[in-house]
Amino acid sequence: MIQKPNRMSLVEQVAEQIEQLIEQGEWKIGEKLPPEMELMEDFDVSRNTLREAIRALVHAGLLETKQGSGTTVRSKSALGAALKPYAKKATMLETLEVRLGLEKQAAQMASQHRTDADLKKMESHLNNGKQAFELKNLDQFITSDIQFHKTIVQASDNQLLIDLYEHMTDIIYSFAYDFMVMEPSFPFGQAFHLGLFQAIENQDKASAVAYVDKDMALLRESITKMMEE
Amino acid sequence: MIQKPNRMSLVEQVAEQIEQLIEQGEWKIGEKLPPEMELMEDFDVSRNTLREAIRALVHAGLLETKQGSGTTVRSKSALGAALKPYAKKATMLETLEVRLGLEKQAAQMASQHRTDADLKKMESHLNNGKQAFELKNLDQFITSDIQFHKTIVQASDNQLLIDLYEHMTDIIYSFAYDFMVMEPSFPFGQAFHLGLFQAIENQDKASAVAYVDKDMALLRESITKMMEE
Repeated sequence: MIQKPNRMSLVEQVAEQIEQLIEQGEWKIGEKLPPEMELMEDFDVSRNTLREAIRALVHAGLLETKQGSGTTVRSKSALGAALKPYAKKATMLETLEVRLGLEKQAAQMASQHRTDADLKKMESHLNNGKQAFELKNLDQFITSDIQFHKTIVQASDNQLLIDLYEHMTDIIYSFAYDFMVMEPSFPFGQAFHLGLFQAIENQDKASAVAYVDKDMALLRESITKMMEE
Repeated sequence: MIQKPNRMSLVEQVAEQIEQLIEQGEWKIGEKLPPEMELMEDFDVSRNTLREAIRALVHAGLLETKQGSGTTVRSKSALGAALKPYAKKATMLETLEVRLGLEKQAAQMASQHRTDADLKKMESHLNNGKQAFELKNLDQFITSDIQFHKTIVQASDNQLLIDLYEHMTDIIYSFAYDFMVMEPSFPFGQAFHLGLFQAIENQDKASAVAYVDKDMALLRESITKMMEE
């Protein structure tokens, strides 16, 4: 018996493959997708199938199509895309509060699960931050700040926590970056980071949570000031 | 000058409207969408446009199309749909840990922001739970349990926190429900709930967080047991 080919599943397959390539970093945020003809050949599908797959990903917020300039990557994952509207709707402070809840949970779990490799990574980000502070390289300072926090969350060994935290951190920093470059409050943050690192190293959960609180209060203060201006 | 109608934006408009109707509860999870002809008329679009909009929502995880049985609602929002794969990939315990982080944050914020109306709602869910326990109505008991927790998170007044928490709670309870009906550990939970309520009423953040910890430890224990069996 002849079976009709399932057109939807073909579109689905192409859409899912594109999504995976984006998640794996093959195509990065802001980058253009290869030309239509090339993709049609690579996936071995018709123009219609390819376009429909792309439209599905545009709807999901992963891709962006601008007339005349092709298709670019807008978000790294469906979760990131689903969280994005909140960054606009919710205030930045609401996103920050959620991040605080996630980071405290992560700090507790990291205190329990951290490996020697985790501690080494944290220490290296701390040293990079210290060096950046001495050289007054604010760009490097902020990068090592973000990396330090992400390493703690990665040490929690919980993939959902890691993904939620990273997306929220990206949203916050893309918003706060310009301000942080101007703001000279970072020496305090540096001291809290060292305390947080030592608490995790000593597996002292309560102290780790307290340092996350102090560190985040500083960031909250900066963002509040920025929003008042 | 003649402008070509923008076909994509028509599909987008229909997809977004359907998404909103689902979010607003017009079409509920598990429910079928109205017949294609009716939707084509209501949206005043062609069959192709409607079908493409539906396929975009299928890809996003909001709708599900089964051959012969039409299109049904699968998830209430893009965020819920984006979180769903984690419930399978991540273990239930990972989801629980993230929920714990969110709920502690919520309990702290609820201690600060709770209104009289919030407290009244919490009290009413507590009383429903107590009554259900006396009547051995486990179904009602679990419902009031969930509602009690959700009310606390709603009192945090943070929409991102509320949405993340509710989706994660739905995932956990849809998994754990059958087990909880069998498990006679709920009297303990009841005592922790009362303590949590009083802590929030007295605006005692630290005590609120401690009760969330105790209550969640109980749930974690149940789920661990269930997974070992």
